[in-house]
Amino acid sequence: MAGNHCYGCGTENPRGLQIKSHWQGEESVCVYTPRREQCAGPTHYLYGGTIASLIDCHCVGTAVSDHYRREGREVGEGEEIWCVTGRLTVDYLAPTPIDRDVTLRATVADAGDRKTVVACSVYSGETRTAEGEVVAIRVPPSWRDRM
Amino acid sequence: MAGNHCYGCGTENPRGLQIKSHWQGEESVCVYTPRREQCAGPTHYLYGGTIASLIDCHCVGTAVSDHYRREGREVGEGEEIWCVTGRLTVDYLAPTPIDRDVTLRATVADAGDRKTVVACSVYSGETRTAEGEVVAIRVPPSWRDRM
Repeated sequence: MAGNHCYGCGTENPRGLQIKSHWQGEESVCVYTPRREQCAGPTHYLYGGTIASLIDCHCVGTAVSDHYRREGREVGEGEEIWCVTGRLTVDYLAPTPIDRDVTLRATVADAGDRKTVVACSVYSGETRTAEGEVVAIRVPPSWRDRM
Repeated sequence: MAGNHCYGCGTENPRGLQIKSHWQGEESVCVYTPRREQCAGPTHYLYGGTIASLIDCHCVGTAVSDHYRREGREVGEGEEIWCVTGRLTVDYLAPTPIDRDVTLRATVADAGDRKTVVACSVYSGETRTAEGEVVAIRVPPSWRDRM
């Protein structure tokens, strides 16, 4: 999306995480390769704040894409759709190794006109290491300019 | 704390946020100066994932410090106390400007032997822009080595 400088998902932020999300059927999927500095206290596990960031951006991106889908539009087609995070919840189930990709799988749990609830699981290989939920709030196109 | 490489609060992670927390009476306080790249979609607001990271580390640090305090010890005195994040919840109330310090104020809401619940508010100036809660789980000293 043009003009997106978001540290998590902005293509225009060279220092950011630059995460990418795509649909696989009804699941939205994101694969992320951790950087060595994104470690927890011990250097071989991924920092929980980075996991929260991945869940946040992946779920908001999923909510935005779901809005476009519900309206029968391609992402970016026509008037821009923008969502912000209302609430983020993360449950940490097990340490996440830093030396391999993590995969996030999200589904839309509740699709409202204004609020979209997205549920997300984080996997390291076959192990589910965290689960999260995001309440994404659709804001009018003018919102970004107002900011 | 020696050997803490955490991206959020580790003094031994030169690329990390290096947040510092200290007590002011019953409140634990952290002041953080955002980096320009830690922006949301628009460049003048702080990224929600960074806010979540600050809340996570500040609250876990507060829980650890509270354990020491309850045992009448200085932080780092005697057998090391270590907590991990069980659950992190963040409610975003308003956009947080990136061009000024943010202040986190946390209090211990429930102090158990194993679980400590820490409530936290994030301020930009006088404006409360986010609130969060962390359930911090005390783990045995051997936990870090097991990892």
